[in-house]
Amino acid sequence: MATLLHIDSSLFPGSGSVSRDVTASFRKAWEEQHPDGTVVYRDLAANPLPHIDDTAFTSALVAPEERTPEQAAAYALRDTLATELEQADAVLIGAPMYNFTIPSTLKSWLDQTILMGRTTATEKPSAAGTPTTVVASRGGGYGPGTPRESFEFVLNYLEKMLGEGGFQLDLEFIVPELTLAEGNPAMAELVGLARESRAKAHEAATARGKEIAARLAS
Amino acid sequence: MATLLHIDSSLFPGSGSVSRDVTASFRKAWEEQHPDGTVVYRDLAANPLPHIDDTAFTSALVAPEERTPEQAAAYALRDTLATELEQADAVLIGAPMYNFTIPSTLKSWLDQTILMGRTTATEKPSAAGTPTTVVASRGGGYGPGTPRESFEFVLNYLEKMLGEGGFQLDLEFIVPELTLAEGNPAMAELVGLARESRAKAHEAATARGKEIAARLAS
Repeated sequence: MATLLHIDSSLFPGSGSVSRDVTASFRKAWEEQHPDGTVVYRDLAANPLPHIDDTAFTSALVAPEERTPEQAAAYALRDTLATELEQADAVLIGAPMYNFTIPSTLKSWLDQTILMGRTTATEKPSAAGTPTTVVASRGGGYGPGTPRESFEFVLNYLEKMLGEGGFQLDLEFIVPELTLAEGNPAMAELVGLARESRAKAHEAATARGKEIAARLAS
Repeated sequence: MATLLHIDSSLFPGSGSVSRDVTASFRKAWEEQHPDGTVVYRDLAANPLPHIDDTAFTSALVAPEERTPEQAAAYALRDTLATELEQADAVLIGAPMYNFTIPSTLKSWLDQTILMGRTTATEKPSAAGTPTTVVASRGGGYGPGTPRESFEFVLNYLEKMLGEGGFQLDLEFIVPELTLAEGNPAMAELVGLARESRAKAHEAATARGKEIAARLAS
């Protein structure tokens, strides 16, 4: 019985958010393939994590018995988040682009979950190699060769933080683009491309959810 | 009488944080040169802003008279932050690197302060051209040619968001590096360079604070 850690960070609740809809496609395929599996769900908009502060940061630097009650409470949250990551057989993250980078809620999740010598900054981080799918939706187009290529701070950042330089997860990105096209008259010409990108993202998410579930169930 | 908007985002309160100490050098020089000036201070660690949520995001998309009470309250905060930026004759930001990018508290400030058609995404954003100094301290070295160059997501991100692609502020960066050297035995060899970098940062901050205050007072 495998466990999926599913994290959404779109500020829009419920359906209608492209990143939430595409992670839902992955999850549905995963659940159908693997009905005995467990899903741990973190909705960072409905239940935002606090910004990391001095108490939470220093809680990881002192021995457990030396923590103040405030540090102990702050560390308990960080330990819970790290344990969720460690116990996951697969990870699924909705990471929409807000103002060219990840939501502050997702940065807070990273800051709280990063524990030096445990989840990162050690020869073998505790979740290294976990198959991870990131749905990195964005309102415009930021691909190589586009005018906005140099404004992309989601994929390149998460490649480092979730990948080689951080958690060392086994990453795949699904990138629905131009999500603002349908609501923005100035982007009317791009509506066809936007729909195509979204359809492809759902297809890729379904295939990947099924494939990972099958791999874990076998 | 000029106004300085001073923002700190280090999670460490008080002195000892390199970014706070260096912004303090700027501010001291500015205040000495311009004793009649006003300083508006935002300490994003002591008084963190909420992560932007659905209510706050949509509050800027509807006419004032159509806002729900929740949207009106959320918009009032965004308007206050935008007005602080607009009324500043100079801006000073402490932006330490946490996990390769800016603190989530500073991202929240950006998300809340960004108002399309007002502070950004318009021909002349409302604070365009304001002289702005960013103290971008970091624990290691991420300069061009260093092994960690590709892990730098502070300067390149803020150049876009505070600069050309966002607020269009007139930016200068002061970058104290290797701030972790003195506390990390593995970085012992770098202590000399770290001290030199910090001393230079204080010097640059003092000179810049004085220069901007003189320019504004004249």
